[in-house]
Amino acid sequence: MKPDDRVIYFAGSIRGGRDDAAIYAQLIERLKKFGRVLTEHIGAASLTDGGEPGLARAIHDRDLEWVSASDVVVAEVTTPSLGVGYEIGRATEWQKPVLCLFRTGTPRTLSAMISGCPDVTVREYAEVADVERIFEEFFAGLR
Amino acid sequence: MKPDDRVIYFAGSIRGGRDDAAIYAQLIERLKKFGRVLTEHIGAASLTDGGEPGLARAIHDRDLEWVSASDVVVAEVTTPSLGVGYEIGRATEWQKPVLCLFRTGTPRTLSAMISGCPDVTVREYAEVADVERIFEEFFAGLR
Repeated sequence: MKPDDRVIYFAGSIRGGRDDAAIYAQLIERLKKFGRVLTEHIGAASLTDGGEPGLARAIHDRDLEWVSASDVVVAEVTTPSLGVGYEIGRATEWQKPVLCLFRTGTPRTLSAMISGCPDVTVREYAEVADVERIFEEFFAGLR
Repeated sequence: MKPDDRVIYFAGSIRGGRDDAAIYAQLIERLKKFGRVLTEHIGAASLTDGGEPGLARAIHDRDLEWVSASDVVVAEVTTPSLGVGYEIGRATEWQKPVLCLFRTGTPRTLSAMISGCPDVTVREYAEVADVERIFEEFFAGLR
């Protein structure tokens, strides 16, 4: 699949905590080389842990429709997040390729439900520059 | 369904953070009135955010099999958790009844993917005693 044709859903923590928002923005910038990213707002500094305005049901239905419409899901999983976990659970049921990125050098331990899930690809990175190689390898492995 | 016949999967944060472990234990004690709780260890004080020992794949497969074998999932969702979100995502795909309990009086805001999900029942509680009525109503509403 050519990058022009590929649709990517990027998942990162919002109400779970915005500690990594700046990193999400940098990952999204690098992801754009590989496809169209539906969820650029996840990286926006203006988005706080209060969440997006609007009815939760509308946000849920829109995001789930985006997951459904995407060719691949890329999730940053260092900051624990119910929404990101939920989206990974639905995406694996729908047999979407899922790449989970976990940053080393923090006190966090990744959930065994993610690190032990046979239907997702988990890659650790120390700094954002590392993800370029990870993305190259992951997308090259997809049809 | 009689309590003797009902199997309940209780979900709470482990590697996402154990701030609420004592509350999980109290919820599980009250849940036992309504069925057999498969995951009593979630409330154990000895279980830290380092997680259970053992291979992540074995933990994932066991927990997912337990979700699959359960009649209902009850999740405490105040502390954000990838694993809890993942299990809710899989359980909703499998059309399991899911009850999510969110504690008020904390700085947390519940994920819109949970509060806006039409396939889960979300109930807020201020203290553990409140859940007795919530459990009575929820289980009475199931077949």
